[in-house]
Amino acid sequence: MITLPYLLRSENIARIEEKHLLIGDRRVYPFEKRFERCSSIPEIASALKRMVTQGGGPLEVALTAMVFVAEQMKEGSVEKEFRELENAAALLIDSRPTNTTMKRTLLSLLDELRGNPGFIEQVAPLVEARKNAFDQLYHQLGRAGSSLIPHKAGVLTTCFAEHTFLLSLAYAKESGKDIRVFVPETRPYLQGSRLTAPSLQEMGIAVSVITDGMGATFLGNGDANLYMTAADLVCMDGTVVNKVGTLGNAIAAKHFQVPYYAFSVSPDPTKQDASGIQMEWRSAEEVTQCMGSPTSSAGMKALYPAFDIIFPDLVTGVVTGKGVLKPEEIKRNFQ
Amino acid sequence: MITLPYLLRSENIARIEEKHLLIGDRRVYPFEKRFERCSSIPEIASALKRMVTQGGGPLEVALTAMVFVAEQMKEGSVEKEFRELENAAALLIDSRPTNTTMKRTLLSLLDELRGNPGFIEQVAPLVEARKNAFDQLYHQLGRAGSSLIPHKAGVLTTCFAEHTFLLSLAYAKESGKDIRVFVPETRPYLQGSRLTAPSLQEMGIAVSVITDGMGATFLGNGDANLYMTAADLVCMDGTVVNKVGTLGNAIAAKHFQVPYYAFSVSPDPTKQDASGIQMEWRSAEEVTQCMGSPTSSAGMKALYPAFDIIFPDLVTGVVTGKGVLKPEEIKRNFQ
Repeated sequence: MITLPYLLRSENIARIEEKHLLIGDRRVYPFEKRFERCSSIPEIASALKRMVTQGGGPLEVALTAMVFVAEQMKEGSVEKEFRELENAAALLIDSRPTNTTMKRTLLSLLDELRGNPGFIEQVAPLVEARKNAFDQLYHQLGRAGSSLIPHKAGVLTTCFAEHTFLLSLAYAKESGKDIRVFVPETRPYLQGSRLTAPSLQEMGIAVSVITDGMGATFLGNGDANLYMTAADLVCMDGTVVNKVGTLGNAIAAKHFQVPYYAFSVSPDPTKQDASGIQMEWRSAEEVTQCMGSPTSSAGMKALYPAFDIIFPDLVTGVVTGKGVLKPEEIKRNFQ
Repeated sequence: MITLPYLLRSENIARIEEKHLLIGDRRVYPFEKRFERCSSIPEIASALKRMVTQGGGPLEVALTAMVFVAEQMKEGSVEKEFRELENAAALLIDSRPTNTTMKRTLLSLLDELRGNPGFIEQVAPLVEARKNAFDQLYHQLGRAGSSLIPHKAGVLTTCFAEHTFLLSLAYAKESGKDIRVFVPETRPYLQGSRLTAPSLQEMGIAVSVITDGMGATFLGNGDANLYMTAADLVCMDGTVVNKVGTLGNAIAAKHFQVPYYAFSVSPDPTKQDASGIQMEWRSAEEVTQCMGSPTSSAGMKALYPAFDIIFPDLVTGVVTGKGVLKPEEIKRNFQ
């Protein structure tokens, strides 16, 4: 029996409670189990922009936010107009430009609701259906991912690789495989040391936190024989976009002939290759502080590109709902 | 005219004052300009072990420590026996096993003093001569290094690359070249954001702090067209040992066809290749804290290999006192 760790339980990602939408605040985990209480769509979009949640979190928040708007319509605090849902979706989509799964999921939801006079009542069941479909997909990818994990595996990852990666490890562990995970801390937000490592510990999987410069070190000395990450975006040519730091580890993996697999619940048929990717540069001040303390002299310049583009020649395979695909097989399966 | 930044001025690295040896504490720079006051060789060795100084610092401290012992002999607090110098050297050497320049310098100093009845008076002038020789070598390597820096250079580095690297940039700037340096913060001790970046700023060189996972990102997007680091050790086959994080960037540099140069004042003729290298694993607790704050849940496991071994196929050249040498040219010049 697979039990999800705290961070992946849906009620800890987003839930509606007393006319508020609550978002599990991943910025303060594991030091606090705090929720951001939002009373409007602009507040929710602002929370997403401020990285209150990340990874697959924004998708779950955005879907829950559509139910939230429908409830506001029912009680009369928002007009019962379809464009209110469209405006809400536009604000949410705009808050996180790189990961396009949320955008495509919201747009398909709107398409299904559009023109239906009873759309307000339909939001909740349609959202529920989509959440269930994603849950099933997560488990499907988890089982596919676990088949790639050898017995006596040393798995390097980057950032917080969410349901798909953690479920892969859970299924591999359940089948008796001996697994150890190397988790780069993932500065500046420390998703690795704060989110991934405690979740793995909670799941009973051996974990070692390392700094972001050590990936190549453990790939090179043989301790890590597999590299696996989530993907914020996968293009039709197999290009992977993921948290900054992924590129360096993918290059080192190739150098040491270690396979690199990315997980994607939804490769983006609207992105042919890297040329169409909208990159996010985040606040540089994050880089010159850690846990609220400055790490350099006052006013020091810094740079914070949020994501890396990993070209297909570095990708061994992408774990998808249609199986583990080589980069060149993505297009014919998802276009 | 080249002016050294605060951290590289010899009085800020190590000096004797009122029967104490003072070591500039690089652990708290730039937030404090503090000195560790040592009254004995065991205290000095302990300070080196505790990373009070690093890079070229231990060499300078160890040489100054020999003068300190000679002064203690003169005033009678230490026996006027040659073995006292030998014991002191052994303790200092033992405190930092990876960088062998200090070891070889102390052993050659002892060789020169041994059997000389007036050795106590000879320590200070011989140490002074060695310090001057290193200073000249630093400037020689700085000039050689500056010739490798193109106009409109984006230079990636790792950790605190000391006199040789900073002097290279200073000479390149003096000759009118347009330079920008990308400085990985170098977790866990943050030598990059705390030492390198403020020193470059002090020298008037454009600098951007990045996280340790971003080296490949800036090599890949073309912003960084040169990779340069210090070397804690260079073997006869051209193997470079340097701060963990160097390997990943060196692999990425090769992947993107960016040259990688290491600086070495003294390749080690006693080390033929990587097989003879004694590696340091440091306290793993450093990895799960930053600036005194925990970065993961209590008791989380971590790993801290202090150095990377960079095999010769990743090294474009080593900047030495005998010129910029290809890895395969080291042996015939230094054996």
